[in-house]
Amino acid sequence: MSEAHSPARPFHEAVRPTTIIQSPRLNSRLGVDVAIASETFQHTGSFKFRAALYVALNVPHPAVITASSGNFGQAMAYACRLTGKACTVVMPSTSAQVKMEAVREFGATVDLIDVKIISRADRVAELALEHPEAYIASAYDDPYVIEGNASLGDEILEQARQADTLIAPLGGGGLTAGLVTAVRRNGATIQVFGAEPLLANDGARSLREGRLVSNDGEPQTLADGARTISLGRRNWEILRDGLAGIVEVPEEQIREAVRLLFSLANLKVEPTGALAVAALLTEPERFRGQAVWCVASGGNVDPGLYRDLIA
Amino acid sequence: MSEAHSPARPFHEAVRPTTIIQSPRLNSRLGVDVAIASETFQHTGSFKFRAALYVALNVPHPAVITASSGNFGQAMAYACRLTGKACTVVMPSTSAQVKMEAVREFGATVDLIDVKIISRADRVAELALEHPEAYIASAYDDPYVIEGNASLGDEILEQARQADTLIAPLGGGGLTAGLVTAVRRNGATIQVFGAEPLLANDGARSLREGRLVSNDGEPQTLADGARTISLGRRNWEILRDGLAGIVEVPEEQIREAVRLLFSLANLKVEPTGALAVAALLTEPERFRGQAVWCVASGGNVDPGLYRDLIA
Repeated sequence: MSEAHSPARPFHEAVRPTTIIQSPRLNSRLGVDVAIASETFQHTGSFKFRAALYVALNVPHPAVITASSGNFGQAMAYACRLTGKACTVVMPSTSAQVKMEAVREFGATVDLIDVKIISRADRVAELALEHPEAYIASAYDDPYVIEGNASLGDEILEQARQADTLIAPLGGGGLTAGLVTAVRRNGATIQVFGAEPLLANDGARSLREGRLVSNDGEPQTLADGARTISLGRRNWEILRDGLAGIVEVPEEQIREAVRLLFSLANLKVEPTGALAVAALLTEPERFRGQAVWCVASGGNVDPGLYRDLIA
Repeated sequence: MSEAHSPARPFHEAVRPTTIIQSPRLNSRLGVDVAIASETFQHTGSFKFRAALYVALNVPHPAVITASSGNFGQAMAYACRLTGKACTVVMPSTSAQVKMEAVREFGATVDLIDVKIISRADRVAELALEHPEAYIASAYDDPYVIEGNASLGDEILEQARQADTLIAPLGGGGLTAGLVTAVRRNGATIQVFGAEPLLANDGARSLREGRLVSNDGEPQTLADGARTISLGRRNWEILRDGLAGIVEVPEEQIREAVRLLFSLANLKVEPTGALAVAALLTEPERFRGQAVWCVASGGNVDPGLYRDLIA
């Protein structure tokens, strides 16, 4: 709408309230009463806009640089457009064309790299030297990102006073750290669980070992938003005591959750966005009889992949 | 949720508020500022639940009989479960298995017929004789249905004070008749347009000829919710003066609208549910520069068909 070129507005006016979805047929299938907080209709199609906007509104820098081939790049591009900042998004040249286009549509510069020649982190460091006026934004390990994501927790807690459990996808830990932050400051008793791909279970292993551990390389899970090497350090400090647990979700349950949300709740989610519902499929006994809220974190998925998933 | 077995509650507590979706990328593509009122997350996945619940709450009969192979059958089944009424849904034996299952999951009786042997109307008449206690519900030509659908108009008008135009799918005319009813009783000036498949353009021809005309047989449009032979008589009386116009939508624009809503708004709609956005693709000049609301009427679509549509 016309907001696209309007000056910066306060955070809560610009963020879309989360969409709450309930489906009796989905509840029957899952054996749990579930409310879904869907961020698929958030601006740019994922919760990442909350973090990106919080960064853009709170750093004094006139420009932002970030590395992201996914939802954070698009979110940062749109947040910078809304706040009148320049934005550069570093992406591998092998990224999907639709993802580059989405970033460019919001007026940001796409900086393509060959990851065989230079890593994303090294290219961001190069750009930071060239642009000392720019803020370097991490997609998850950043206090503004955590605070922006906490706004989703605040919204959910307003509605979920009677709920026992809140489950959210876990990648770098920015979302769950935000939710835990919100639970703590609201004095709520709801338990927060992370839903992490089994193939990328550095978070679950970190909890078990009591120290931050990493994956050996980028895990090839279908949930591409959770292909992080490790939790962010700031997030780990919040999550090590703040999470009630992490459910390690096999790939087949991710697929099944995407299908169920499509067929029983009319909800289009990306694989990462299905992780929380997939956690209920993975450990149904753990949550039986509880009132559960699941975060569907985003909806941006390649049509070809989505076709395969709902087959 | 637990409401499934609770006693009847007033209409406005049981109906889900419509979900309002806006997408800057969709606006850029359409060249119009659009807000989508999505009924895809309404109970049973379409606006038809509004009509069905209004019937179930307002007729004194302990049972309801209807003929529907689509959204109204599922909606009536769930509305009857919520209100403690018996429900029979007449369906052709060739209906999709998933549609029969959805009706049965809500506790209704599915009455299968061979349409080569007996018509739906004749079978409903037979059942009406056997069950004199039952109310026979039309999916669109019924004052309670129109009133139930008007509740969507009331909701939209609360939000759309500055809007110029409201576009909604047109099949039997129950939805648009409800919207026009709401506009009239609210004294609103918004113009209401119907979006009708060109292959099933009895409504547009009726407006042109100033009399109610019918299609020769069931039109084979992709928008299966608009495969009606003609507008309902009650709806025609409201629509003949109440509609600002009808856009006749070719099949290719229906497909394109399903794809755009999927890719730019993360919204899963059935072909009928995409008709209003498809009308903007069909006659872009007619609505340029206006603030437009489009009703996405439902989201229930066979996965196989949907896969083809988003390819």
